[in-house]
Amino acid sequence: MSLSVYACTAEIFLPTLQNLVQILGKAKAFADAKKLEPGVLEGLRLAPDMFPLKRQVQLSTDFAKNSTARLAGLEPPKFPDEEQSLDELIARVQKTIDWMKTITPSQLEGGDRRHIVVPLRTRTLEMDGLPFIQRWALPNFYFHVTATYSLLRQAGVDVGKQDFLGGV
Amino acid sequence: MSLSVYACTAEIFLPTLQNLVQILGKAKAFADAKKLEPGVLEGLRLAPDMFPLKRQVQLSTDFAKNSTARLAGLEPPKFPDEEQSLDELIARVQKTIDWMKTITPSQLEGGDRRHIVVPLRTRTLEMDGLPFIQRWALPNFYFHVTATYSLLRQAGVDVGKQDFLGGV
Repeated sequence: MSLSVYACTAEIFLPTLQNLVQILGKAKAFADAKKLEPGVLEGLRLAPDMFPLKRQVQLSTDFAKNSTARLAGLEPPKFPDEEQSLDELIARVQKTIDWMKTITPSQLEGGDRRHIVVPLRTRTLEMDGLPFIQRWALPNFYFHVTATYSLLRQAGVDVGKQDFLGGV
Repeated sequence: MSLSVYACTAEIFLPTLQNLVQILGKAKAFADAKKLEPGVLEGLRLAPDMFPLKRQVQLSTDFAKNSTARLAGLEPPKFPDEEQSLDELIARVQKTIDWMKTITPSQLEGGDRRHIVVPLRTRTLEMDGLPFIQRWALPNFYFHVTATYSLLRQAGVDVGKQDFLGGV
């Protein structure tokens, strides 16, 4: 037996993005309760040379939508990286969820054998679909979602592993 | 077209564990160069109520080997959680890699339809193989590997995203 490309990508990204909305909602409630200055949580970094929280959220959405689009042979939808507040970040994740929901399993069929080309800042990544899923899409996606969760947990937001897993 | 269960589990866990060995090797070199007291890096936590680095490494290996074993219908190999030093943690990851290499793609065939039962501390998790991969095995595995990486990066160890991705 075997798994569809949809099951190994969109069906993983979608619930995780929904969990991310809940986690960011808890961050928003925390910021409101503590009367935090705007931008404090959004600017948190795990290390000085790592991206701030807002960029971690943007990248979480990018790896979900761009990877899915590329595996389906579609042009990835471009969202400008302009979000500054938690509300705007939540809206971006929601917009990504809405786009992800337009993708059907049949659009991703054969994506594992598709030749994927990703323009990066300093080079071009070229891989077949299967290693692209295994070594690029999934690890990068989880990396940025986990970084977002870790930053908020470190800041004292009341999130636990169950929020990350979505109540499994 | 479709993906094997092996491609969506073991073929993801194995290279990531190999990356983890490299990351922990850099941590060891950092600890030696800085003459850090034994246990300092191993005890780092992202938050006071999160597990320390040594437990993050143990859990990374557990989610890889236990999930793979369960999908193959095997008893998960038990490694006692006794590691205290980076050297011992590296050895545990290596031991996990060695075990993972004994698993063949055919052993995991049909694992997506297998009924999985996982005894947890306070409850028993029961899921079919496919959602177990999507919502338990992969997110938990990546969570603990990313937490390990983040702790070391935050501590100043010279690791970057390329170490996490394994030079893709």
